[in-house]
Parts: sequence; C-alpha cells; structure tokens
Amino acid sequence: MERLTVVKIGGNIIDSPAELAVFLRDFAQLEGRKALVHGGGVMASEMLRRLGIEPRLADGRRITDEETLRVVTMVYAGWINKSIVAGLQAAGCDAVGLSGADGNAILAVKRSPEPIDYGYVGDISAGSVNVSLLQSMLGSGLVPVFCAVTHDGHGRLLNTNADTVAAALAWAMSGLYAVRLVYCFEKRGVLADPAGSASVLPSLDPGGYETMKAAGTVNAGMIAKLDNAFAALRGGVPEVMVKHASDLLAETGTVLKI
Amino acid sequence: MERLTVVKIGGNIIDSPAELAVFLRDFAQLEGRKALVHGGGVMASEMLRRLGIEPRLADGRRITDEETLRVVTMVYAGWINKSIVAGLQAAGCDAVGLSGADGNAILAVKRSPEPIDYGYVGDISAGSVNVSLLQSMLGSGLVPVFCAVTHDGHGRLLNTNADTVAAALAWAMSGLYAVRLVYCFEKRGVLADPAGSASVLPSLDPGGYETMKAAGTVNAGMIAKLDNAFAALRGGVPEVMVKHASDLLAETGTVLKI
Repeated sequence: MERLTVVKIGGNIIDSPAELAVFLRDFAQLEGRKALVHGGGVMASEMLRRLGIEPRLADGRRITDEETLRVVTMVYAGWINKSIVAGLQAAGCDAVGLSGADGNAILAVKRSPEPIDYGYVGDISAGSVNVSLLQSMLGSGLVPVFCAVTHDGHGRLLNTNADTVAAALAWAMSGLYAVRLVYCFEKRGVLADPAGSASVLPSLDPGGYETMKAAGTVNAGMIAKLDNAFAALRGGVPEVMVKHASDLLAETGTVLKI
Repeated sequence: MERLTVVKIGGNIIDSPAELAVFLRDFAQLEGRKALVHGGGVMASEMLRRLGIEPRLADGRRITDEETLRVVTMVYAGWINKSIVAGLQAAGCDAVGLSGADGNAILAVKRSPEPIDYGYVGDISAGSVNVSLLQSMLGSGLVPVFCAVTHDGHGRLLNTNADTVAAALAWAMSGLYAVRLVYCFEKRGVLADPAGSASVLPSLDPGGYETMKAAGTVNAGMIAKLDNAFAALRGGVPEVMVKHASDLLAETGTVLKI
C-alpha cells in the first residue's frame, strides 16, 4: 500500500511565526501522500479576549457557545488555515484547506449536554470521514489541510478537538494507505520526567502509559493527545508517534505501541 | 458545451440570516454545474470596529493593512465561507469552500502602491485561475464556494474584490463551459431611476451604461459591479446578468449585452 502521513501540528508552534515557517518548509518536503491537521486554541483564546469574551474550559476542553463558535471558526478555518495553505503553496506543496463541512469531509455529532454542556462541540463517529473525497484529492496530488471545525450535516458548524480529527482521519484512511500518524508539538516526545526535557521515551505501550498516569507524570493536554493516539493504534493505524515539530523529518520522538 | 453558472452573492444579503437561508436553498436547487462567490464587507467592517480598528476605504475599496488582512481573512474565509458551505451541505449541495490559495485556485498580484496604496489587495491577471483544478472539482460534482481572498504564490494572502473574483472565474471557465455569470444583490437589477425600485432595466448595453454614468444615475458600488460584468462579457462570457438574490431561480433582472 502507498504511504500516507497524517501530521497534527499543535497550537504552540502555530503561535510562533518562525517555528511555523520551519515546520511548513519541512512538511512540504515530506515524501509521499500527506495531510495536515492544525490546532490554534491559544490564538482563539486571545481573539476571544480581544472581543471581550472570557474563554471557558472544562477539563481542558473549550466550552463553545454561539459566539465562541463564530470566533474559533474565524481563527481556525479563516486566518490559521489560509495562512498555512498560502505558506505551503509558497513552498511548492499543493495544499487545500478544509473544514469538515467542505465536501462533507468530516461529519460530527454535537456532544450530549450531560454531564458537561460543552455547547457546539462535535464528536466524530466511525464512518464519518469522507474517504472517497480524500482519496480523490490525494490521488490528484493535493494535500488536505484540516482545521478543527466539523459540521453536523444540518447546517451547524461544530468545534472539534484537532488531535481527534487527526486520529479519525488516520483511522479512516488506514484501509487504503499505509498510514503514519505523527503528533507534532513543542516537546521532543513523551517525557519520562516532565521536568526534564532530555528524558524522551523512545517508545510507550498502554501498560507504560497507565503507569505514568497513575504516577501523575502526564498532564491533561498530553493525556488527551495520547488517548487519541492509542485509539488510532487500536483502530488499525499501523504507526503512531509523538515528536517535536522541528523533528518532523528526523527519526526521533516517541513511538507508540500496542 | 455543458452549462456552468457562476453566482456572486453580495454582502447585504449575507448580513441577513433569513435572506441568506432562502438564497442558499435556491442556489442548492440551481441545475447544472455551478460555483458561488461571496462578499462580506459589511461584516468585516463590523468585526474591525469591534477590534478597535477603524475601517479605511478609498473610492469604495478597502485599504488593507496587515491587521485588516487578518480580520478580512477570518471573516470571509472563516466564518462566512464555512457557514455558507455548511448551509449548502444541509441543503444537499456538495459545496467546498475555497480561497485563491487553496489548490492555488486563484493567483493574484499585489496592487501597485501608486496612485493609492491599498495595502494587501490583489488583482487577478489573465491566466491566473487554476482551470484544471476547478474542472476536476466540478466534474466530481463538487460546488466551489469562493471567498474574496487570494494569494500571491509567495505566502502572502491578498484581499480581492468579490465581483472581480466572480468575473475572473467566469471568464477563465468560458473555454470549457457555457458560462452564465449572475450578480445577486439587494436590488431587482440595474435601475433606470435609482430612487424607484420598480424601474428595472430588462437589459443594458455599454452605450446605455455610459449614458447612465454621465447622468449620475449609477452609484460607485454599482459601477464597480457593472465594470466587472461588462469586462466579463467582453472577455467571452456569453451571459451576464444582475438581479435580486431572491430572484436567483426567476427569469428577471437586467441582462447585460455588448
């Protein structure tokens, strides 16, 4: 099977124009079929505050009322997505920015208001990724660039976790491609000791992950990422890794195993 | 040749959720291949003011500094574009939102700072529309939905007049399709008497247009629209018309002729 690399790039890298430029140059050089998923939560919170709206989070996830949905859609699907696409085009990578609504690429379901009402937040269920659209785009040499906004098919946009979008894409495309899912962020991988940046684990399995969670050595953001990463592995994605954005082309970081 | 309808929808309709919903329902029902181009200037000006930035215009065109570019990209490519795409998807129309950067769909050149420095505003030159990308999308049954943001190919997004984007698309696709270009806005067509909404001209040719301009019976916004419309006709678009958004499916409005 042909290789497909699905890369998630985190918000802390996006916030730094210099780091983002280096990352996009590297991503453009990545060989084979590829897709990018980006976050942007820090920038969205900043824009909310400039508009006089205090960002609200529960368990590290954004509570998305009507006005917050509008702002995250502006920031994610508008400024960040189009800036990344223009940057990739300049680097010779034929990127196309997408939300889940575009071409009905990713359908989601509004999360139940119980036990916590997150508002206009979407969960992606199995079979909700438009595999044929993506296969057609990838086959034409296009590089999909996804923001973390989906839709419910009834005209409602939904804020959706970018780590989850990346896992769902990787999982859905695994029947057609040899998929590698790469979570890029501001750390060198999963750290054995969160205080020491040198202590990168070369690999991690679910047992090791449980031990770390019990010991309290992984934070909430990392748990959300690793839960998605292990779910993708269990769903049939053959290769999942976590690494620093500047290491995209290097064989470093933490390889997840089941 | 197959029919392709390129529809431009103006900002005043977009600002009214009820009118926009009716328009999208009609657009979804339009037969044959189709593409949509939307504005959004009123909403962009409102967002600029909320962010403490006073919108600046010269000859009815927006002066776009770095921060204004960011806001118009958020509003046009983010909120408005994705809301329209989600609305069309709900109506059974397989829409894909695009800026000029996506798939290098429309390349533009930053306008010369002389005689007026408009900042990050782009002009589309001949041959700058990615005809093969659009042909491939249309052939797959997808409906491109363009916002008025393009790029220069060097990583810079550019604010571009939506009437001009529609004319450039219609013109570029005329070799492959029997193109009909329809400008939809909040009036019933070109009015013989701007004060009387009943006085819609059934057709208008360049001579009649010059007479109206000399008499001062067309305003600046309408002149920009009609200049683009006549340029499209001269460029080889066989059918160009101006009508009310609620008349999309009706045989009314003003047909332009050369």
